[in-house]
Amino acid sequence: MPEPDARFMALALSLGRRGMGRCAPNPAVGCVITRAGRIVGRGVTGAGGRPHAETIALAQAGKAARGATAYVTLEPCAHHGVTPPCTGALIAAGVARVVAPFDDTDPRVAGQGFAALRAAGIEVTTGVLADAAARDHAGFLLRNAEGRPRVTLKLAASFDGRIATASGHSRWITGAQARRAVHAMRARHDAVMVGAGTARADDPVLTVRGMGARYQPVRVVVSRRLDLPLTSRMAQSAGEVPLWLCHGDGIEPALAAAWQGLGARLLPCAVVAGQVEPGTVLRALGAAGLTRVLCEGGGALAASLIGAGLVDELVGFTAGLAIGAEGLPGLGALGLSRLDEAPRFDLVETRPLGGDVMHRWVRAG
Amino acid sequence: MPEPDARFMALALSLGRRGMGRCAPNPAVGCVITRAGRIVGRGVTGAGGRPHAETIALAQAGKAARGATAYVTLEPCAHHGVTPPCTGALIAAGVARVVAPFDDTDPRVAGQGFAALRAAGIEVTTGVLADAAARDHAGFLLRNAEGRPRVTLKLAASFDGRIATASGHSRWITGAQARRAVHAMRARHDAVMVGAGTARADDPVLTVRGMGARYQPVRVVVSRRLDLPLTSRMAQSAGEVPLWLCHGDGIEPALAAAWQGLGARLLPCAVVAGQVEPGTVLRALGAAGLTRVLCEGGGALAASLIGAGLVDELVGFTAGLAIGAEGLPGLGALGLSRLDEAPRFDLVETRPLGGDVMHRWVRAG
Repeated sequence: MPEPDARFMALALSLGRRGMGRCAPNPAVGCVITRAGRIVGRGVTGAGGRPHAETIALAQAGKAARGATAYVTLEPCAHHGVTPPCTGALIAAGVARVVAPFDDTDPRVAGQGFAALRAAGIEVTTGVLADAAARDHAGFLLRNAEGRPRVTLKLAASFDGRIATASGHSRWITGAQARRAVHAMRARHDAVMVGAGTARADDPVLTVRGMGARYQPVRVVVSRRLDLPLTSRMAQSAGEVPLWLCHGDGIEPALAAAWQGLGARLLPCAVVAGQVEPGTVLRALGAAGLTRVLCEGGGALAASLIGAGLVDELVGFTAGLAIGAEGLPGLGALGLSRLDEAPRFDLVETRPLGGDVMHRWVRAG
Repeated sequence: MPEPDARFMALALSLGRRGMGRCAPNPAVGCVITRAGRIVGRGVTGAGGRPHAETIALAQAGKAARGATAYVTLEPCAHHGVTPPCTGALIAAGVARVVAPFDDTDPRVAGQGFAALRAAGIEVTTGVLADAAARDHAGFLLRNAEGRPRVTLKLAASFDGRIATASGHSRWITGAQARRAVHAMRARHDAVMVGAGTARADDPVLTVRGMGARYQPVRVVVSRRLDLPLTSRMAQSAGEVPLWLCHGDGIEPALAAAWQGLGARLLPCAVVAGQVEPGTVLRALGAAGLTRVLCEGGGALAASLIGAGLVDELVGFTAGLAIGAEGLPGLGALGLSRLDEAPRFDLVETRPLGGDVMHRWVRAG
């Protein structure tokens, strides 16, 4: 067997990324089928997680799949879920070889997909672009491993780290391009999450706008007492776009019923030291099927997540304006006493975006 | 006459920049002398402002200067100052042509240099790389126009805009490369300025270190009452590296005498609303000959300069760590009530620097 062509895997990964934010709890998988070096089929996991990428690519390839090589960005499933297993489809289509980055860590798959393929005489090659695939599937893999979604924290702030004036004025600190980038980020996450303070202060709707997106991320609000206005834009749109509320115990039944009546989903969470405990919030979101969550603040929720080591990626947008120390800080209190206790992040990339600076970091290992 | 070669002017500008931070109150000028397209002399203004770039380049060119073209980054001087005028030297050397970006705005020069050259039959061409030259000479030109030096504000902060923990711990927020870049910035400024709070909290020495620099910028501390420890590192080194103290009125004569005894220079400034007024500080520094001042904080001084519209350039270093809202803000209170009152800056460049992000901005026009 010749070396697999990593360019086809790179293409499969880029196809897979198109599914990000609309496949949870399934992984956003890409698949490219080649025969004699020519692409005969492509697929990406559909919205809601089905059909699977392999099914789409095999259908496109038709008879050309016989003897072909399938590049799949994750181990094909071997179990009967909502859809019949992809291994069976690959075997039935007569595919000669399957190239994948690594085993699926879903215990229902976990090597059984590769085993089924090999048992049917299909050559299986793994390890191709495994690091890139691990980055793309990080949310899915983290949920499998720890039961929680991957968390990206967005922080759009003035040069001096403020997200609003003392009077709460925050429109706009960053420019149109940075704001558009935030909508693109929302579209690639399963959910957008804010704290109750931000929900009350800004009355945001948190949908993806201006991107031609038909699939909207879940809106998550962390509110210990559910004391959000039932007239807010999110409350009023809860029937159309999912709204999940992470709350503490002792909620008044009538209030809970009112929110449920609007279409919101309630997720009870633990309260520690008067605050909804961020680990519980994320485990509840993981259990509800989320793999990628974008937190857009405010400062208190952001600080509670960072302080608990639960922010996996940090995306900053720094604008060229000064608000001053009376302004609202982008990050609340962390309770550090020494600098070496500060949570640290490694720089991934930085570039100008319109008149602002975009910088992306991942939690230091 | 053929078009002048802008590449020689670019070279002259880069030579001139080598003199930045050691020529004040003179401009850091570069000079390249060419004959038949070949470089026969180069010069840059010497430390302390003399010899002038033209003198050095002419000496290097020797007899080859006859009939040559001199690219000078500013109009050659026509007045007798500490050195004899450069126009005379260029004429005596038999230079055929002088290429320069624009007239010197020093009223003692202001076109008279070009006039003298033309009167001697030398071809004068201006307008070559004028924008680049205006950027390089910005401090010198600003002092001519407004009597104050150009101010660069450096802000090295955590991801959330903090420059120290609540307990004052600030070593180190940024990495070694960013700190080295700050030393390079110091070397290119005539002075490094901090507020009294930073001087007391950090006991900095504010010299250029690790760059092989033999010329040190003036250290400026803004302290209304001169209530800085006489045992501080800056006080103790005032005999070797200039230390200027900008203070308010009513200073105790014994205290003033003690500082002067250590070698410090006292600059009395106006006090407005209990604070040393930043405009007065800069005019005093301009009158004392400074053209380029690097302010390294703290938050109160930085805010007073930004609030008064006196920060011309802002250089940020953002580190990948979170300190939280109890930390010391990089910028003090600005007293804004609305976002549209916020001082704005235009992005010039951003790039990764070690593990940090460097971003540079200029005041929006």
